[in-house]
Amino acid sequence: MVVLVLTLISLHNVRRKPNNSLLAVSILVSLLFVPIVPAIDVVELVVRELETDPLFNSGCGSALTEKGTVEMEASIMDGPGRRCGAVSGISTVKNPISLARLVMDKSPHSYLAFSGAEDFARQQDVEFIDNEYFITEENKGMLKLAKESNTILFDYRIPVGGYETCGAVVESALHMNGLPISVYAPETVGCVVVDRQGRCAAATSTGGLMNKMTGRIGDSPLIGAGTYACDVCGVSCTGEGEAIIRGTLARDVAAVMEYKGLGLQKAVDFVVKERLDDGKAGLIAVSKTGEVGYGFNCNGMFRGCATEDGFMEVGIWE
Amino acid sequence: MVVLVLTLISLHNVRRKPNNSLLAVSILVSLLFVPIVPAIDVVELVVRELETDPLFNSGCGSALTEKGTVEMEASIMDGPGRRCGAVSGISTVKNPISLARLVMDKSPHSYLAFSGAEDFARQQDVEFIDNEYFITEENKGMLKLAKESNTILFDYRIPVGGYETCGAVVESALHMNGLPISVYAPETVGCVVVDRQGRCAAATSTGGLMNKMTGRIGDSPLIGAGTYACDVCGVSCTGEGEAIIRGTLARDVAAVMEYKGLGLQKAVDFVVKERLDDGKAGLIAVSKTGEVGYGFNCNGMFRGCATEDGFMEVGIWE
Repeated sequence: MVVLVLTLISLHNVRRKPNNSLLAVSILVSLLFVPIVPAIDVVELVVRELETDPLFNSGCGSALTEKGTVEMEASIMDGPGRRCGAVSGISTVKNPISLARLVMDKSPHSYLAFSGAEDFARQQDVEFIDNEYFITEENKGMLKLAKESNTILFDYRIPVGGYETCGAVVESALHMNGLPISVYAPETVGCVVVDRQGRCAAATSTGGLMNKMTGRIGDSPLIGAGTYACDVCGVSCTGEGEAIIRGTLARDVAAVMEYKGLGLQKAVDFVVKERLDDGKAGLIAVSKTGEVGYGFNCNGMFRGCATEDGFMEVGIWE
Repeated sequence: MVVLVLTLISLHNVRRKPNNSLLAVSILVSLLFVPIVPAIDVVELVVRELETDPLFNSGCGSALTEKGTVEMEASIMDGPGRRCGAVSGISTVKNPISLARLVMDKSPHSYLAFSGAEDFARQQDVEFIDNEYFITEENKGMLKLAKESNTILFDYRIPVGGYETCGAVVESALHMNGLPISVYAPETVGCVVVDRQGRCAAATSTGGLMNKMTGRIGDSPLIGAGTYACDVCGVSCTGEGEAIIRGTLARDVAAVMEYKGLGLQKAVDFVVKERLDDGKAGLIAVSKTGEVGYGFNCNGMFRGCATEDGFMEVGIWE
């Protein structure tokens, strides 16, 4: 049995629709569903594809820092042995998720960041590319909007329908294609897989927040926060990184299953309800028995699911 | 009620004894035990003192990277609201723990690293100092030993009594003051406090592994791995960072209490036994009701405890 879930996440930003890219990846991966492919290889492959598509906030198309540069981060975790690898501050490696995989497989450490991570990459067989490659015109525009809104908003987040300040509700001034948008740009990508042997794996990759401070690390590279896999389940999260970190969201799905004995979807529901305080986030999860679960406390979460027997589904809302 | 535990950790390195510095800090802090001081202020203050003492692997006295430089990291977490701040790759800020506190209090993010973290520091009121200040002659010698041992050891760690390679046990060639030593240098510092109001807080600071790759991030700055605090308990870990990350050790102490209903010490014992696989580590913990717990699966762990009523204790072994 092989089950795949992949996810592209949106909090308030509803201008984008799940598209052919998502389906294409599902199909591509479903072609790979042969018994010998372990889950860890599939999560890496899927996330590589999503990193390469400029539609998503990872790899090409990453959100920009306040300086207009790209600093990407990613992590990957293999359920068997809880092996893991993570990178942050990546600016010239084309596929951060594959660098995270190399950190897991080829370095004595499990997390490398910034110039040290790029030094390590130069010792490995990875593709390098200029930082400009990752920067899209659309994201330049989003950064401009974010910088403008910064003059009035502290946390860069503009809720649909307006925001509250000094006790008054102010309508959001930011629209795109006639819809209110967020400059929060949280379309982090992630993938969780369980293979025929019941091995779970998870991978997450992101450019982080639009207009983030340089040096900012979010939840995506943090094992237990944005990514987690063990012999019970695999989990990948997206959304407001700081809330996901505080809630150790990915680990808690597994912890609730292990320590409270809940099933996958009940564990997901519990964690989304109890661990997020006022932060907005979502997650996807698979269990070793092939269950698929997801949850979010925001308007929508772009996601797709494919299984070995040909089932495929994409969704945004509940 | 106020309880303080502070810890300086050793895995295999038995050449150092808990010293007056540890006691001095305990006394200093016990003087501060007035009802109005919240736990979060005490953990920061204690870790600042330990960072300033060159005996410990944090601040002055930090372990060196493979390039002979210092890259420090730290995190702090306040139980109420699970507020947190973390920094990595710090090279010119005298007290990384206070920078982590400022990230928590003054930035929109919860984790900043490398040059971006130093940029943020320059906007704040923190003391800067040249990287040379953090480098001790002893650590230069340790780095030399580590580099020599690297030719035969992959993971830098030389167990007391020898190590196993190719199926044969080889006696450790490294001694100092007549005792076998490790070049692993894991004397990370940490502090957990519960105050009269039952507020828990935790802080951890480190130079990381001796001879680590530049850019390496360990468990200490990672919320849920090296540091965690919530309304149930506060936890700080030390040891083999990669194993602590895989085990989400600090969070799991709290998770076991919350989800399995175990008491503090039972939760600590469970986590040390069940979550560390073959990694060597230890941790200290306090609960909101004033319980003190600790555990480790290595030879010893330097630690101290002080309570409001004048009780003070230091220990290394079980």
